[in-house]
Amino acid sequence: MRVLAIDSSGLVATVAVAEGEHLIAEYTVDYKKTHSQTLLPMLEEVKKMINLDLSTIDAIGVAAGPGSFTGLRIGSATAKGMGMALDTPIVEIPTIDAMAYNLFGFAGIICPIMDARRNQVYTGFYTFEIQEGAYCFRVLKEQFAADMDSVMEELNGMGKYVMFLGDGVPVLRSAIEEKMKVPFGFAPANCNRQRASSLAVLSQQYFEEGKAVTASAHKPEYLRLSQAERERMEKENASDR
Amino acid sequence: MRVLAIDSSGLVATVAVAEGEHLIAEYTVDYKKTHSQTLLPMLEEVKKMINLDLSTIDAIGVAAGPGSFTGLRIGSATAKGMGMALDTPIVEIPTIDAMAYNLFGFAGIICPIMDARRNQVYTGFYTFEIQEGAYCFRVLKEQFAADMDSVMEELNGMGKYVMFLGDGVPVLRSAIEEKMKVPFGFAPANCNRQRASSLAVLSQQYFEEGKAVTASAHKPEYLRLSQAERERMEKENASDR
Repeated sequence: MRVLAIDSSGLVATVAVAEGEHLIAEYTVDYKKTHSQTLLPMLEEVKKMINLDLSTIDAIGVAAGPGSFTGLRIGSATAKGMGMALDTPIVEIPTIDAMAYNLFGFAGIICPIMDARRNQVYTGFYTFEIQEGAYCFRVLKEQFAADMDSVMEELNGMGKYVMFLGDGVPVLRSAIEEKMKVPFGFAPANCNRQRASSLAVLSQQYFEEGKAVTASAHKPEYLRLSQAERERMEKENASDR
Repeated sequence: MRVLAIDSSGLVATVAVAEGEHLIAEYTVDYKKTHSQTLLPMLEEVKKMINLDLSTIDAIGVAAGPGSFTGLRIGSATAKGMGMALDTPIVEIPTIDAMAYNLFGFAGIICPIMDARRNQVYTGFYTFEIQEGAYCFRVLKEQFAADMDSVMEELNGMGKYVMFLGDGVPVLRSAIEEKMKVPFGFAPANCNRQRASSLAVLSQQYFEEGKAVTASAHKPEYLRLSQAERERMEKENASDR
């Protein structure tokens, strides 16, 4: 199957076209432009470069959240628009899952962290395990929003090497270096931010598991805080004033 | 430091700009066009997208071979031309090393295979090991040319999980499935071909180790066969006629 993948959940804009194990094109930009200046021109560029007939796309994979509200809306609107025009299903991939998949084959704990402000992060815990001879992606803890201290406490309790990545790293690096008690590292530039190719691989897997939706049904997942957390935040906000 | 990375050693054309842990842009195309149709237009596109002033580039990383003769020459000529014009040093990265680096953090054996025709491959053996708390890239066996049977025999003797990637996989998959005696797998689309971002990470490491050359000194490494192998090939050629 042929999939188009789009991720504009964070500072990075990234698009890819893949077919099975073949990555036909991928274009990734992390530059101080808005996604409205990058995403569609990038798609247009890739389309032209690989003579892409959009009607040959079997599914559109999109980083469906969490992430920046505006970024998610631009990615989802683009995917919905194309999906509606072409009658192509959409595969909604949790943003944090797709980032973790960058580290294909890593046997420690993969912990993407997206900066969600106020010392909060969007994160999740992942690993790759051998199953029947093949490395399989395992979600150890589904993506969630939390303050970084509690995330590190949980990771310390798991007793394994932790590899961090994501735009939360530059913000929280010194806190991590101070508070982590298990061995840990930071992923390098080739795999430490959103990549549409990882999204494309997961999109094909999800699609084959029947997890696609119609373009009109697709909605981004903002991963809102639970009621208790919201109430606490509201109190904190009130006392800040 | 800021690095521009270029790889056109195989079927893939890929360019990236990175600065430390920040991948500013990466563009990768694996489509039935010649590199003369892809590489420079891709560079031009990236340059425009990120408003890149080429004079701010500290080094040009290039996949210096092995690979297709024409592909390597196009990549090297581009790097040399830019390096000469801008007086920028060139970092020559072994093609197979850069491909292996896609699998950052993988603790089994990473075995990229590039199809070199006549059942021969360009390959090398790599892994990532923890050293002083950080995952370090280890070259277990430097890149070499050999027939796939002897490569598999050697891998079987090493007794570890082997992850294959590269354009040799579609060609040799059934031979691999037949003859490998240790557990093995094939890397997915997000990391199974050349990526300029991996080249960019290694280029920064090599540059810091003082391993840059001047643009005029740079030459691709075709990884020619040894005399004995060449003579054997010549005999085989003669008996083929």
